[in-house]
Parts: sequence; C-alpha cells; structure tokens
Amino acid sequence: MNIRMTVYIISKMLGVEGALLLIPAFVAVLYKEESALHFLVVSAALGIIYFFTGRKKPGNKMIYKKEGLIIVGSAWILWSLAGALPFFLSGSIPSYLDAFFETVSGFTTTGSTILTDIEALPRGMAFWRSLTHWIGGMGVLMFVMMLTSLDDENSMHLMRAEVPGPEADKLVPRARTTAQILYAMYFALTAIEVVFLLFGGMDFYDALLHAFSTAGTGGFSNMNASVAHYDSAYIDGVVTVFMILFGVNFNLYFFACLRKWREALKNEELHMYLGIIAGAIVLITVDILHLYGSVAHSFRYASFQVAAIITTTGFCTADWNLWPEFSKTILLALMVVGACAGSTGGGIKVSRLMILLKSIKQDIKRTLHPKAVTIMRVNGRKVSSDTMWGVYIYFICYILILIASVLLVSINNFDFATTFSAVLTTLNNVGPGISLVGPVENFSGFSALSKLIFCADMLVGRLEIFPYLLLFSPELWRRRF
Amino acid sequence: MNIRMTVYIISKMLGVEGALLLIPAFVAVLYKEESALHFLVVSAALGIIYFFTGRKKPGNKMIYKKEGLIIVGSAWILWSLAGALPFFLSGSIPSYLDAFFETVSGFTTTGSTILTDIEALPRGMAFWRSLTHWIGGMGVLMFVMMLTSLDDENSMHLMRAEVPGPEADKLVPRARTTAQILYAMYFALTAIEVVFLLFGGMDFYDALLHAFSTAGTGGFSNMNASVAHYDSAYIDGVVTVFMILFGVNFNLYFFACLRKWREALKNEELHMYLGIIAGAIVLITVDILHLYGSVAHSFRYASFQVAAIITTTGFCTADWNLWPEFSKTILLALMVVGACAGSTGGGIKVSRLMILLKSIKQDIKRTLHPKAVTIMRVNGRKVSSDTMWGVYIYFICYILILIASVLLVSINNFDFATTFSAVLTTLNNVGPGISLVGPVENFSGFSALSKLIFCADMLVGRLEIFPYLLLFSPELWRRRF
Repeated sequence: MNIRMTVYIISKMLGVEGALLLIPAFVAVLYKEESALHFLVVSAALGIIYFFTGRKKPGNKMIYKKEGLIIVGSAWILWSLAGALPFFLSGSIPSYLDAFFETVSGFTTTGSTILTDIEALPRGMAFWRSLTHWIGGMGVLMFVMMLTSLDDENSMHLMRAEVPGPEADKLVPRARTTAQILYAMYFALTAIEVVFLLFGGMDFYDALLHAFSTAGTGGFSNMNASVAHYDSAYIDGVVTVFMILFGVNFNLYFFACLRKWREALKNEELHMYLGIIAGAIVLITVDILHLYGSVAHSFRYASFQVAAIITTTGFCTADWNLWPEFSKTILLALMVVGACAGSTGGGIKVSRLMILLKSIKQDIKRTLHPKAVTIMRVNGRKVSSDTMWGVYIYFICYILILIASVLLVSINNFDFATTFSAVLTTLNNVGPGISLVGPVENFSGFSALSKLIFCADMLVGRLEIFPYLLLFSPELWRRRF
Repeated sequence: MNIRMTVYIISKMLGVEGALLLIPAFVAVLYKEESALHFLVVSAALGIIYFFTGRKKPGNKMIYKKEGLIIVGSAWILWSLAGALPFFLSGSIPSYLDAFFETVSGFTTTGSTILTDIEALPRGMAFWRSLTHWIGGMGVLMFVMMLTSLDDENSMHLMRAEVPGPEADKLVPRARTTAQILYAMYFALTAIEVVFLLFGGMDFYDALLHAFSTAGTGGFSNMNASVAHYDSAYIDGVVTVFMILFGVNFNLYFFACLRKWREALKNEELHMYLGIIAGAIVLITVDILHLYGSVAHSFRYASFQVAAIITTTGFCTADWNLWPEFSKTILLALMVVGACAGSTGGGIKVSRLMILLKSIKQDIKRTLHPKAVTIMRVNGRKVSSDTMWGVYIYFICYILILIASVLLVSINNFDFATTFSAVLTTLNNVGPGISLVGPVENFSGFSALSKLIFCADMLVGRLEIFPYLLLFSPELWRRRF
C-alpha cells in the first residue's frame, strides 16, 4: 500500500476544505459575526496539516483500488469531522456528535437536521451548513480532482468509487476534463436558479443558500419552515423545477450542450424518471384534494413534495406527515427510487430500478423459453451481466443494511414509522421522514447510538455502499494485492 | 395446451377436497351441529364436478410447464373458493370475501384471521379451519399426487412449482415415493405432538387442532387467546419445540431415518436457522425482562414467540405488540427470514438468506481479486450460478411485491406500522403483525380491496412468487410452446 501517496491526497483534500472555510468566514465578517473567528481557526488548522503533509508529492505516485477506497472512505469522514468543528467551537451546536451529524447530513446532501431552531443560527453558520450540500453534491473528491494534478488513470480509480449509478461514464477521454465540464454545468445551473429566486423576491443570501441546497439535492434551508416560509407559488415552482433538473443525469446536459438531442432526449432513465414523477404527482394531487380545496393548491404542494422526495432533496412546503397514508407511502417509496444515476441525488437510482424490473421480465422469458437468447438492453445498448450482477448485489446489500439499521435504531424505542422512515430517509440521503421525524420535526431526540447509525447510513448511501463495504471487509486487510 | 388433462387434474383435486370435507362434516355430526349439512352440500357439489370431469383420464396425458403452472396457480384459488363455502353457507362468516380470506389464510398456512370471536365458531367449522392448515402445509398438490396416478415426469413439473426453497430435491428417484415418505413423516410428527399435548391436559379436540396448526406452520387456534389460553409452561414448551421441528427441512428427517446423521447434522441451513433462533431468543429475553420480572418467564415468552414467528406459524402466548420496539422489530425481521427450505414454513427461507449473504462475500472477494476464481458452496456442494440468479430474482420480486402491496393497502389509511406489518405477515404466511393487526387483533377492519391484496400476498408467498408471476405474465399467453 502506498501510504505516503494516500496521506498526501487526504492532506491535500483537508487543505481544500480549509480554503473553502474561508467563504463562510467571509460571510460572517460581512455580517459582523463573532463566529468568523471559529471558521478561521479551523481553516488555519487544516492549512497547517496541508503545509506539513500535503504540499510535496511523493516519488511513487501510483495508487490502486485499495488506496482509492481508503481515500474515498476516509475523506468523507474526515471532512465531516473537520467541518463540524466551527458549529461546535462557536457553540451553535453544543454537542460535537450533533455537529458531526449535521455536517455528515450536509456533505452527503441528506438534509436531516438535529437543530430545533434553525433561524437562531448565525448567518455564517447557516451559510456553511448549506454550502456543505453544494460541495457534497458533486462529490468531495471530484472537487479535489479538478484542483490537484493526479494523473488520469489514478483519478478514474477515485471517480468510479464516487460517481453514483450502476456505470461510471467518462464523457471525454480525460477524467479531469470530465470533472471540469460537469462542474461548469453545476455552477451554471446553480447561478440560473439564484437569478430565478431573486426574481421571486428572495434576498441574495437566502437565494444563494436555497440554490446550494437544491443543487446538491440536500434540503437544508435557513428557515424553520423550509421553503414554506416564503409562501410563494412562484418560488415553489422554481424550486420544484430545479430540483427535478438536478435529479437528471448530468451527462444528458452535456449531450444537450453538444446538440446531441437524440441521445439526450431518448434516454430511457429520463423517461422513467419523468414518468414516475408525473404518476406520483397525479395520485397525490387527487389524494390530498380534500385537504386543500382546489386542484391548483393540491397540485402545487403535491408536485413540490414529489420533486423534493424523489430527487432526495427533502425541502418541504407542506407538512406531509398530516397527509393521508397513501400519499405518505408514495413518498416513502419515492425515497427508495431516488433520482437518476450521475445526478447529485441519492436513493437506489432510477436506472437500477429499471435494470431490476427488466431482469424480472428477462427471467420470465428465460423460464418460458429456456433455449431463447435473452439480451437486456438499456438505451439500445446491451447491459453486461457484470453490470446486472453489480445491481443485484447492490440491492441485496441495500435491503440488508436497511433491515440491520432499523433493528439497531429500534433500540431507541420510538414508534415503528419513526424508526423505519428515519433509516429510510438517511440511507437514501433525503432528509425528513414521517411521524417523529416528519418535515416539521428533527433528529435531536435520538440516542447517540442511533445518531451514529444515521451518520453511517448517510455515508453508505452517498457512496453507494461498496466503498465502505470493501473498506470494512477483513479481506481488504488480509493480504497485499 | 392440453386443456383436457388440465381440467381432469383440477377436477380430481376438487374431488379430493370434496372427500376431505367429509371429515369436518363427521366432526359436526359428532357434536350434533347443524353445520354438518353445509359441509355435506359443498362436498356433494365437488363430488358432482369430479364425477363429470375428473373420472376419465384423457388419452393425451402429457403436461408441460404451462399446464403445471395453470394447475398449481388455479388449484390454490379454487380450493380456497370452495373451502370458504361452508363458512359462508352456515353463516359462521357472513361475508363470502371474509370466508375466502380465512380459507386462503388457512390453506397458505398463514393464520391471519378476520374473526373477532373465534370461540363462537361451531366445532365443525373450527376443525375445518385448522384442517386447512394441515392440508396446506405439505401442499395441496403433493397431497393429490399421492392419490392420483400421474406418471413421474409430470408430477415433478408440479412439485418444482410447489416445494418451497431455492432447489427442489428428490429424495428417491420417484417423485410419488418422495411425496409418500414426506407425508409419512408429517403424519408421524403431528401424531407425536398430539400425544404430547394430551399429556399437558389438553382435550383431544383441542390437541388435534393445535397440532394441525403447528404442523402446517399456520397458527389458527380455536381459542381467542391462542395458545395463551392454556397458560401452561409445559404446553408452551411442547408447541415451541414442535414449531421449530416443523420449520426444519423435511429431507433432514429422511436422512435421519436412513441413519445418515452426518448429512442431517452438518446441514449449514440448519445451523444458521438454529443460530438465528438462539440469538433472537437471547436478545428478546433481555429486552423484555423488565416486563416479566424473571428470566424464566421472559425466556418462556421470548422463545415461544421467536419460534412462532421465524417458522411463520404465528401462534401467540404474549401480546408482543406491547413489547419494546427492539423486540418487535426483531420479530418483524424474523418474518422475512422465515423457516428452512423444504419445510412447511414461509418467508424467504434461511437458505436463500444464506445465499444472499454468501453472494456479498463472494462479490467482495471478486472485486478485490478480479482474477481469482470464486466458488460459492453450501453444504460443501457448489451453488450453480442459475440457482444464485434464481435467488436474486426471487428477492427482487419479493421486495417489489412488498412495496407495491404496502402502497395499495395504505389507501386504507391505517397507520404505517399496521399497513406495513399486515403486508409483511401475509406475504410471509405468518399471521399476526403489530399495531392494529397485533396478536390480539384481527384483519376484519380492512377494506375489500386490502383483503384481496392480502389474499394475493398469501398465495404469492406460499407458492414463492414464480408460479403466479409467470401465470400473470403476458408472455405465457402470447404464443404456443
């Protein structure tokens, strides 16, 4: 194992976090808040680490799968451990575990919170909280990849562990260029959303924070009532549309930029994603009609909530914990589905669901016509049996982790709906659940054990299980390879 | 498609049910109950069907997969439709849908009930109710196979669709002989349990009914309080042990009879099954200690309930709906695990869980050592990739059916714990759930739609999905094969 190179990359990444902390420090100074100091202290500490271990590139630059896994797995944890410090040092979040939970929730773009009064946070702290979503959105590591100068083969090791979905595509031959293109689009879409929100009468600070949270499909708001605070159909509409846009595979935007409209619009995953959204909106609109009186109102709340949940953003404009069970259950099911592969969203991803459904169809065919050759195609291309196998193993792990987490959290003795939905919402990086973790509630009431399990679920969900699965397997540590 | 042969077999099976109905008719006569008449009427009607279409064997006796699926799929439904008639005609269950639900619950060995006062049932009716468990236990069709004279190749078509677990083994070369051996053991074990229960002071009628329900891993009791009615540590113990025994793969008893002790005792599934039981008992005993005061009491209730749930019997001696959430969640997880393959129990089966877990381990190895050859073994024998593939597809279907059912039942607007556990308990053929379908509650409050979904889940769970999946696929009906 190349320890020096591993330490070098991790130190470099911590240095990047140190630099990023200067942004909320600047915001805090702007609003003349004391907490600027706490950001600067942590930033300086990370800078020192970088100075001693992350400046000079080791001679042997090769890293393999093992190093890649260790870097990815520990990066998210170390970033969260460091990112939690300003909350804790400033006293904004008095418990370090809670601060860690909040930061993991931020970087993993989950949006679950332990805060009981969000509006009491200093502006700098709220800014940092939403910024973690935006940073987490496209992956801590891809961010770093752009800034460091890893050679290309190495960066693909990291990217494969990092990019969500069953298959990692390179848009262009060089991984770093791919990352740069994706980031450019991410910046552009975020900026456009900010402009739209400003038109709706939001001030610049709020618009920026909500755009960060939408882009990362995170869901932190600086308002206790989330987006419902603004009570504006225009703002609801803008956020709904942008949540859906950030749930789409970013490759499709790249195709659109290249005017490859056919490839962009004929994407099967996109069709299924939009189909599920449309179906869910219709069902919920009808189901909650009696609560809101008019179709227009039901549609507004239903579409916002469907978009917020399937993209795993987790904003809310209505306390859907009070909706009929059917609507609530649809939302819980959408949490599992999640957004498209290659987007900033979580969940098992629409493309995996598609492969699972096609597998069943293929199996029926194979059973009835044992001699027929059955090939599964997505977007006209053959799906390899390796990809299918990967999806199955992912799904099996996902369900087993879900069951194990529910078991462990049930020790807390909250009702089943709370326990189950809290695990579901963290594992899928959504944010709120139902019952005691409903949209107007928070996660502060859980025990330390439960909070740690939620942190693990958020991390496992964000990295799509395998990096942590491998990292914690004795096999990885048994022998050299 | 060989329609004449299909009709012939189905008619023959209905004739067998007609004959079986004479048993509760006899019981009703014995207790001088009017309902004897209703059993005789239905029995006669089935006799007439048999007389006209089930007596003469068609010239072309060949049946293939398609016929096998249609026979298996429709057999369980037709048996339930006919078996529900005595309940309905006698007025014991005033709604035919409820009577159908109760009978499906009986034949599928689920044990969920819509009855609010079980003790109000005439003795003949209660006898028939428990008898359906016993008949369902080893499979309606295997019962018939023994009595009819299908040639051997045909009967394997039916048996493969019928016997639970990832692989159907023939113990001896001839399928019919296999069925006869299994039945002999089933009879013997049931008889031994009756004797043990009689020693505990149960009267013969009660002992017979409870043995039927244990053997079929069903869970219907003729007492409102289920086995708790007897409030006897001895009876609890006997039922606990026999539930565990009936959850074991019957092949192992066959090996034991042949004195192949090694094969019987070195069975990996058996070890895992007993390990899970032991682990669950320890955890629950500790968790409920504060409710019962002494370890002996906690152990008694914990072990009974663990055995009742993992074997998917569903008897109860304690209202575990009042236990802490951790214990409740363990029991819900055990519902999913289920008993061993080749037993009378439901659930996904311990052997499937074992293959799922070994698959994850294998995948980790394969990822870390791409060039290494990885072979999965169970009981020292290689598991074929076809078997593994089958387990994956089964698991995927299982989870998707679970989600779809929860969605549809949520229209009923009961709380999430009720909806979720009601689907879980029916799909795994257990019986009671938690919250409003807890052990002292029943299923009478659900809408007609929900009851039909539960019936479908019970049938799908009992036949392990594939027969119905194939039967309802357009592919089966599209062309000749």
